[in-house]
This record gives sequence, structure tokens and C-alpha cells, in this order.
Amino acid sequence: MIKLSIFYPNAEEKKFDKDYYINIHMPMSIKLQGSAVRRVNVDFGISGLPGTKAPYIAICHFVYDSFEAFESAFVPHADVLMKDIANYTDIDTIIQFSEVKI
Amino acid sequence: MIKLSIFYPNAEEKKFDKDYYINIHMPMSIKLQGSAVRRVNVDFGISGLPGTKAPYIAICHFVYDSFEAFESAFVPHADVLMKDIANYTDIDTIIQFSEVKI
Repeated sequence: MIKLSIFYPNAEEKKFDKDYYINIHMPMSIKLQGSAVRRVNVDFGISGLPGTKAPYIAICHFVYDSFEAFESAFVPHADVLMKDIANYTDIDTIIQFSEVKI
Repeated sequence: MIKLSIFYPNAEEKKFDKDYYINIHMPMSIKLQGSAVRRVNVDFGISGLPGTKAPYIAICHFVYDSFEAFESAFVPHADVLMKDIANYTDIDTIIQFSEVKI
């Protein structure tokens, strides 16, 4: 299983519309990508170590059977999904592909 | 549900013993923290965006019912678990507590 993680760094001068993200963008992304998405997870940052702010205001994880499954699911809808990002944030995202070990 | 995420930045001059982490450290951590841990997930970084290396060599997520559940499970074993880190890495970790939204 491979995982696409999308990290939104927690910068104070940036916007991030949590309601739009949870209620509009994520349902659209999940619907468009279909059954290739095995698991989805969204976290909203609370804090870092005690007394510090969360490194990321939001983190999203999509799990697929393979990198090829990700490509087949995501690439046909990449334009629509990427363009929708401006509707909820102006944060420069950090992207990681991982192997799910546990 | 709250999530403790532990990020290990992917720095080339640093060590990270994946076998020790998966086969020794994580089972120890899971056993010591007991049933307070609702879900555990470990990812090993493959890449970032095409042509770039993964931002994190490893990421670990523990999910608990509440921050209090995390404290009750983790704090009594914090010394043992923190000291074991040196056995698999010299990376300075990044910590985040998050609210699990999806």
C-alpha cells in the first residue's frame, strides 16, 4: 500500500478554510478518485510539543494499492482538484509518497 | 480522537535503522501504551513530488480517544521509549498533535 500525504504548513499570514476543505474539497476529491482510494484521513493540527504551535494546520492522507492505482485515480481529475485548492488555501503544500509499513 | 504524529526529517547525514524501528521500537511502544492506542500507523518515505526526495524518512501516527488518554498511556513509559530512540536514529523529530477529522 502506498500513501499520498499532503501537508499544509501552519503559517500565520496564510489562509485555510477548514469548513470548505472538509465539506466541499475532500468529498469532491474522494468522489472523483473513486474506489482506488482505500483509506482517507484528514487531521487538523492542535499543537506541537507543549507550548509550540502545530507544524501543520492540516494533513491529508490517501492510501492506494499502488502508485499506479494513485495515478489512474488522480491524474484524470488533477486539473479540477488542483484548481479547487485556491478556494480554501494559499498555503504552499508539502507532498510525500510513502510505503505503509504498519 | 486525537493523533500524535512523529515526523523524522529525511536528512542525508543522519541515520535511521528501519528494521530496528519496525521490529523492536514500535512493538515495544505499542505494548507499553496498551489499549489506549486506538490505531497505529507507520509510513516510510518514498519520494516527494516527482524528482524530489521524501521530506520524511519515516512518519508514525498514534491515535487515542483524547489527549488525556495519550498522557495516561505514554507518560509512565516516556523515559524508556525516549531513551530507545538513540538505538535507531539521531534525527531530531518533529511532533504534532492533531484532531482526527476524517
